[in-house]
Amino acid sequence: MARDAQLFEWACRMGDNTLVLGHRISEWCGHAPVLEEDIALANTALDLIGQTQLWLGLAAEIEGQGRNADALAYRRDVMDFRNLLLVEQPNRDFGHTMMRQFLFDAWHIEMLRALKGHDNEQISAIAEKSLKEVTYHAERSADTVIALGDGTEESHKRMQAALDRLWPYVGEMFLSDETDRAVCDPAPLREAFDARVNAVLAEATLTRPDSDFAHKGGKTGVRHTEHLGHMLAVMQFLPRAYPDAKW
Amino acid sequence: MARDAQLFEWACRMGDNTLVLGHRISEWCGHAPVLEEDIALANTALDLIGQTQLWLGLAAEIEGQGRNADALAYRRDVMDFRNLLLVEQPNRDFGHTMMRQFLFDAWHIEMLRALKGHDNEQISAIAEKSLKEVTYHAERSADTVIALGDGTEESHKRMQAALDRLWPYVGEMFLSDETDRAVCDPAPLREAFDARVNAVLAEATLTRPDSDFAHKGGKTGVRHTEHLGHMLAVMQFLPRAYPDAKW
Repeated sequence: MARDAQLFEWACRMGDNTLVLGHRISEWCGHAPVLEEDIALANTALDLIGQTQLWLGLAAEIEGQGRNADALAYRRDVMDFRNLLLVEQPNRDFGHTMMRQFLFDAWHIEMLRALKGHDNEQISAIAEKSLKEVTYHAERSADTVIALGDGTEESHKRMQAALDRLWPYVGEMFLSDETDRAVCDPAPLREAFDARVNAVLAEATLTRPDSDFAHKGGKTGVRHTEHLGHMLAVMQFLPRAYPDAKW
Repeated sequence: MARDAQLFEWACRMGDNTLVLGHRISEWCGHAPVLEEDIALANTALDLIGQTQLWLGLAAEIEGQGRNADALAYRRDVMDFRNLLLVEQPNRDFGHTMMRQFLFDAWHIEMLRALKGHDNEQISAIAEKSLKEVTYHAERSADTVIALGDGTEESHKRMQAALDRLWPYVGEMFLSDETDRAVCDPAPLREAFDARVNAVLAEATLTRPDSDFAHKGGKTGVRHTEHLGHMLAVMQFLPRAYPDAKW
């Protein structure tokens, strides 16, 4: 693959992760269990959508075909998305949402740290800006996993169920192909991820699943779960229904 | 309102009911608890979508602006829909879906019977054709409500919960305005509806809710529940994303 095509693909992976997870979290707006969580989730969603502007903006610039970040976000169909399967999983209950967030944050923070010193100045600048926000996300999601895991019998049960359900989506974050390695190989980040996750799960009195089975195909665009198409239908409704709308 | 505008509005009410409920039921395809129910639900959905073709086809013909049934189904936005709030409610569990179906069928069968002898030959022909299908739907949904209401402790509890949740959407079916009365006033149908529903609920050992409170605004287009917009986003995705697609 030509260098630019590879960079475009890679920037879409980063931007689609933050776009899809940002939209998922925004679905909580007005529905969270307490007001403080509602605001915190909305802020997290806004951070991720802001990061999406930067990554997909970079992708559009590399592509040089006149598309912008909005066109990439709102005019691509499901099989053109390059996000990890983890982030497209539905919210389910609040604990499940926070477990998904925790697992993503634990990957995201290591990835952004690795990118911060990248030779490509646009990439390193986006990573540095994002890292400030994601450091806070990771702290908050870890605290919530601990509080609910080591909480009541009911909250513990739900967090363990969420962990068991989401675990098969962890492995994809550390698979790497030529596109990844052209910018930043995620495979070596697994060690730091494991150390962080193991410490938090231990404190949360949760049992790390034994299996290494991993669903894959999201970031390569080979296959998405059925949830992504439904989410995009809702997310893209406005620009699809009113293609020329301006505001 | 001019006579034609009124007839257009009324035909949209009929067609939007069958379109929205038909789509809702089609969401079960491949997910029903047993194969026979899966097939029965898919058939019900197909009947309702077929009736939609007729009612919205009639509406488009009356309007005479070059739109057809597809344009009305797939190119209108949420506030242009004229369906009852009942039919846009989400599926939730199988029992809830069948309770919604039962309540709608019990209204639908009386409405179609009243329309069967209508002076307008197009209306009476559509009603007569639909009535054959709806007679079967009504029998089937009543049988299921009885079987699950008078079933296990768990199924009884769920059916009562479904009835309690859906009951505030019953009243709208019998509200009438000038548009309804121009074709067929639903208010006098309430007596036959009540007799049918009371008999089935008694056999199902379910308690008819005491309240007459009724949400309204769906069929007049004043207000829809948040569920309809999300459903339309998914339902209309294909023609919105690929406006010129042919097959």
